[in-house]
Amino acid sequence: MSEKSKPASDFALSCPLPLSEYPTVQLAHGGGGRLSQQLVEKIFLGAYGNPVLEQLHDGAILQTGGGRLAFSTDSFVVRPLFFPGGNIGSLAVHGTVNDIAMCGAKPLAISAGFILEEGFAMDQLWRIAESMREAAAEAGVEVVTGDTKVVDRGKGDGVYINTTGIGWIPDGIDISPTRAQVGDQVLVSGELANHGIAIMSVREGLEFETAIETDSAALNGMVEAILAAGGSGVHVLRDPTRGGVASALNEIAGQANIGVLLEESRLPVDEQVRGACEILGFDPLYVANEGKCLAIVAPEVADAVLDAMRGDPLGRRAALIGTVVAEHAGRVYLRSLIGGTRIVDMLSGEQLPRIC
Amino acid sequence: MSEKSKPASDFALSCPLPLSEYPTVQLAHGGGGRLSQQLVEKIFLGAYGNPVLEQLHDGAILQTGGGRLAFSTDSFVVRPLFFPGGNIGSLAVHGTVNDIAMCGAKPLAISAGFILEEGFAMDQLWRIAESMREAAAEAGVEVVTGDTKVVDRGKGDGVYINTTGIGWIPDGIDISPTRAQVGDQVLVSGELANHGIAIMSVREGLEFETAIETDSAALNGMVEAILAAGGSGVHVLRDPTRGGVASALNEIAGQANIGVLLEESRLPVDEQVRGACEILGFDPLYVANEGKCLAIVAPEVADAVLDAMRGDPLGRRAALIGTVVAEHAGRVYLRSLIGGTRIVDMLSGEQLPRIC
Repeated sequence: MSEKSKPASDFALSCPLPLSEYPTVQLAHGGGGRLSQQLVEKIFLGAYGNPVLEQLHDGAILQTGGGRLAFSTDSFVVRPLFFPGGNIGSLAVHGTVNDIAMCGAKPLAISAGFILEEGFAMDQLWRIAESMREAAAEAGVEVVTGDTKVVDRGKGDGVYINTTGIGWIPDGIDISPTRAQVGDQVLVSGELANHGIAIMSVREGLEFETAIETDSAALNGMVEAILAAGGSGVHVLRDPTRGGVASALNEIAGQANIGVLLEESRLPVDEQVRGACEILGFDPLYVANEGKCLAIVAPEVADAVLDAMRGDPLGRRAALIGTVVAEHAGRVYLRSLIGGTRIVDMLSGEQLPRIC
Repeated sequence: MSEKSKPASDFALSCPLPLSEYPTVQLAHGGGGRLSQQLVEKIFLGAYGNPVLEQLHDGAILQTGGGRLAFSTDSFVVRPLFFPGGNIGSLAVHGTVNDIAMCGAKPLAISAGFILEEGFAMDQLWRIAESMREAAAEAGVEVVTGDTKVVDRGKGDGVYINTTGIGWIPDGIDISPTRAQVGDQVLVSGELANHGIAIMSVREGLEFETAIETDSAALNGMVEAILAAGGSGVHVLRDPTRGGVASALNEIAGQANIGVLLEESRLPVDEQVRGACEILGFDPLYVANEGKCLAIVAPEVADAVLDAMRGDPLGRRAALIGTVVAEHAGRVYLRSLIGGTRIVDMLSGEQLPRIC
């Protein structure tokens, strides 16, 4: 562990990222797109990669004596802290509950680690903690352990929260991006882009007839219904957060080495959200969701899974949006409204910093 | 989850902290002393308390179908990021491995969540990740899941890391602060205050003949030896980090409603560390350790546990430092070198900000 024995130049030489290109961390390294992926692969997998971490799933799946345990962590740095329909506290609970659910697991418990900035208002912290209680109760999970650190004024931004969750995966359930196969149907549990647009509308001061609210919600109940309806025909589950549906599907296409063909006409987007996307110059396919679930399922269970989604209050606008195809392995394509097909690539720059 | 329906004043009114006293977060709320305790009890337990969280152990212990699972989280905001004998990365691995070990559990896996500041040097991030690999390998544990966020320049301090760990508690082991009982012996696995003084020496620019190094290390191997030697006679384990031995023993004394009598003559402190403490005005009992373990054990196993500690390379200077007594329930006392007894209270203000 002795740092002293190694001159700094040795470290720099062994650093596997092309330092000439990005010698420092960029905002886009946290955006969920190509640079995020590169950072994780080069630095973190480069330093301490192992077969479980390398799966780059929403959470790790650990085979233990007691069964299969899902384990997932997420830090929340969203700005502003309070936004229509939620705040950093409710988001932190939903985000980790959802990551556990996307492993096919039932959440068992979560932890909460706070990094507070000196001078942060105590009544705001209380509002956040109250929202966490409410969100956890709705999801049927408890915060069982925690940690609090305080950093000096000017070294934080009010509050950052890490939540980490664990959950058991029931027998017979096998959810993994690599299970996506040709012929599978791609479903989404509702309209796209609400979370990202709710945040950006506040930041940009956009006014609408009714405020656009985040879709932030716990999806573990819906996932139970999906698994009950589709059983082992449910191959992949993913919540399309940072980087949106486009990034999530690109990751899956890469890991499973399959193509995905989306139908633009089937993508559910609220009228108001679509309007805001146009004003702000965003494609809803790339905007973060915090209460939506992608499911890639065998064709014979697609109708049943779609019905299960629509039977849940959070999934009323669920839709079949595409198909897994053999062509264009590793890539995502979109058949547009006006005909013609275009590639839906991974985001390469920064779109929305600090969206979650 | 609708924030809109609740006026802000309602939240403020229901906030259980006396806002007139501390309307905002103070550095001391993160110092591990009385204010930290108050923040956790009033805000976090006030908002989402439950029987597991209320134990305020180093980690939660969850009774599951597969056995007892320990679950613990810690965020690291240490400044400077690199210090003699370690850095924020090795510290983050050791800290969480130790919290799991202090539950009597064998670490199964850890997560790593990074909050990076825009502009942070990529080669420093690589050094940190490399140290995490090394620390994890030494402890025999893997980082199996992670998360990366980037905040704008001026909203962080290079890098903050959250690690969360899980581990199984072997049958027959029952470690809990409430098990401390009159007649138990209080052991510490080595010299005090090295971590805090290593950090403060760098910050204050103190020069010594040889640099004072952090004691940061993974204690899970030593804990296995302690449990093998002491079995069910091992009642409490605790790593005395923020707030030092004094704060850890005060917490235990309060939870078990017993008194602790320490012998000043038996407290192991390095000469150089003692000198630095005098220069800086610190009492070594209150300074953070990151590679030391307190064990409170039945008198009949005390010798065996002490031998087990000393048999470990990290425990050569282990010592019996005190006794659990019936007097002064809830408090810690020290019999000083010159005779006479003084109270060792919980730290009330801020001593060492951002020590871990």
